[in-house]
Amino acid sequence: MPITKGPQAFAKSEYLRRLAAVKSEMTRRDIDALVVTDAASITYLTGYTARAGADPKGVMISIREEDPTIILRKMDIPAAVHQTFLERSKVIGYAESLVGNPEKDGYDTLIDFLFDNGLANRGVGLDMSALSVPIAEKFRRRLPEARIVDFTGAIGWIRTIKSDLEIAYMKEAAAITDAGIMRAAEVMGPNVREADVIAEIVGTLVRGTDGKAGTWMATPFLCSSPRTGTSHIMWSEDSLRSGSQINLEIAGVRHGYTAPMCRTYSIGKPSDRLRRTHEAHLAGLEAGISAIRPGTSCGDVARAIHGALKKHGFKKESRCGYAIGIDWREMTASFNETDETELKPNMTFHLHLGNWMIEEDFGYVISESIRVTDSGIEILTKAPRKLFELSDSK
Amino acid sequence: MPITKGPQAFAKSEYLRRLAAVKSEMTRRDIDALVVTDAASITYLTGYTARAGADPKGVMISIREEDPTIILRKMDIPAAVHQTFLERSKVIGYAESLVGNPEKDGYDTLIDFLFDNGLANRGVGLDMSALSVPIAEKFRRRLPEARIVDFTGAIGWIRTIKSDLEIAYMKEAAAITDAGIMRAAEVMGPNVREADVIAEIVGTLVRGTDGKAGTWMATPFLCSSPRTGTSHIMWSEDSLRSGSQINLEIAGVRHGYTAPMCRTYSIGKPSDRLRRTHEAHLAGLEAGISAIRPGTSCGDVARAIHGALKKHGFKKESRCGYAIGIDWREMTASFNETDETELKPNMTFHLHLGNWMIEEDFGYVISESIRVTDSGIEILTKAPRKLFELSDSK
Repeated sequence: MPITKGPQAFAKSEYLRRLAAVKSEMTRRDIDALVVTDAASITYLTGYTARAGADPKGVMISIREEDPTIILRKMDIPAAVHQTFLERSKVIGYAESLVGNPEKDGYDTLIDFLFDNGLANRGVGLDMSALSVPIAEKFRRRLPEARIVDFTGAIGWIRTIKSDLEIAYMKEAAAITDAGIMRAAEVMGPNVREADVIAEIVGTLVRGTDGKAGTWMATPFLCSSPRTGTSHIMWSEDSLRSGSQINLEIAGVRHGYTAPMCRTYSIGKPSDRLRRTHEAHLAGLEAGISAIRPGTSCGDVARAIHGALKKHGFKKESRCGYAIGIDWREMTASFNETDETELKPNMTFHLHLGNWMIEEDFGYVISESIRVTDSGIEILTKAPRKLFELSDSK
Repeated sequence: MPITKGPQAFAKSEYLRRLAAVKSEMTRRDIDALVVTDAASITYLTGYTARAGADPKGVMISIREEDPTIILRKMDIPAAVHQTFLERSKVIGYAESLVGNPEKDGYDTLIDFLFDNGLANRGVGLDMSALSVPIAEKFRRRLPEARIVDFTGAIGWIRTIKSDLEIAYMKEAAAITDAGIMRAAEVMGPNVREADVIAEIVGTLVRGTDGKAGTWMATPFLCSSPRTGTSHIMWSEDSLRSGSQINLEIAGVRHGYTAPMCRTYSIGKPSDRLRRTHEAHLAGLEAGISAIRPGTSCGDVARAIHGALKKHGFKKESRCGYAIGIDWREMTASFNETDETELKPNMTFHLHLGNWMIEEDFGYVISESIRVTDSGIEILTKAPRKLFELSDSK
């Protein structure tokens, strides 16, 4: 039996709005065809969220057609038909014999599509930053008459400003994040393994809240004393102790949309150093919150944060946050002093005061997922903005 | 305070053995320096398992030095010192101002290292398949006097044959996988949401078994009726029902090493179609198990499986498995009829009879993680090799 359509994350009109924005950029760059190969942009343009590792896949957009075509390995056709708004004829599978085949692969099918649709001698956009060298060379070799245009980053910048429908999912994701942060406070205690804390948090992130499940597992980051200075490290098999500090960074996800958040926890009374560090970074976070409004720049926000930290005798070298959306971080704007991106309504950011470089063995984290509103800022994550002090007598 | 060394996944001698194999290949290809940028190979050569998204990082191997150098963003230094066998002087951080900076990035620091160590005018190996076009162009532009050699895949093939120490972790990972498969059987039932099943499974995969925690969350794949033909799709918010079929693919992980496994479950009595399909694919799996031994080829294994399936009136178009190791699948050998890779002791595979193309709305999965032994095969995953029939009266 043919596979049926599943519930769609968005109505077709929302995808057509996004496609119209992409086509407008295609027109500006005078290209007729666009090959979209990065997973987050594929989700953005079609609703397809299956993640099949490194298998070639692409959304093919022709300036002359309303709907795009998705091309993926044959076994992934039912998932694409089920999950996306695309008609059956717009979902094309390539033979399974092209998987793990060094001679010919799914990218050849993408190129064949350009030939079959009269696009092989036109302007063709590729996201060079999402293509490895041999794949890009294949496109160049097999399309000698095409005018290949590097479209790197263009869809990323379109994705930066969210629709209200996207914001609604980011709020649902943030509510799940909040639940994870609070669950962590319940389960952390002396003699509890870091891994067991993570198991409880991830369970919460998947179960979700308010009847809305998490739809993906974003990797959680947890480090505790004596390695609170280690960023991006996985949880360990060590147990927490009385006096442990725990840095936690987690994110709930709804239909790809990710709302990250950091909080720091102390089992028992925090040290003076930790309390001072918390107060400084809380002040930095709040300075960032006060600075964010439409028309200001990312650099202004970074300068406001750095000023507040400096008053407390701290500095933070890493950026103070970055754009977020599908699959956590977007590769566009950052709260860096050198980033003059202008803030606009419905941009969303992870406003991030994580600071792992206070000492090599001492870092601290606090952050919020936020959106820029018409007049200022809305904080999407709602868990208490505090240093969590937990009982050490569990 | 400086960060301390954490427990190492392997003794330094094991990393030196791996490095010696890589250097031998470097000598064969007449290169003096190798830049390793893919995350799984970095883990293989150093023990570093932190996953910091798309930030540039690289392990720099010089043919003239015993130990390599790891280069990553400055905030990731403590994690690398803590997790790897490398001395402090062999961990180099680049300035945080290079993150999210379109002008200059961490790859410039990798290139600077080649200049600083007299390697910029020598043979330099790059994994072109792990580098995007603009990054590869930067290497070529800034290293006009280097002889750049594409090292794509070479470390992948070295990783294919595991040491006994690696096999030990894969067995621990497989035991965690088994626990997840059994936990799934306990929690699936009518009116249970797919998301709640996943929450329980993932909790088990992280908690681990026998006192050994899971060290990473590999994405689990779950689909249930009416979408058992959809591969690589995420769990939904739907609830299971009496009569539901559930296809599950999960993997426990220990220190990067991943042992995947699939099983199919039926709530209540399976349909005749499902039972026939199970029997055919079980026969295919067992034909594969019987065929696997050193000296035979991947293609022979695929042919044995296809023959058994054909006897039962089934065919499977997608490959019958692939090499596994760090971060799940390795991009090397596959059980495809056209893959003449010779099986050797301590190669490890996901022997995979997943078949999503029986009908668009009907697929079935069964698989094992296995290793090739000196004389035949060892099955690493141990959960019952059956179609799980669960009570529908929960």
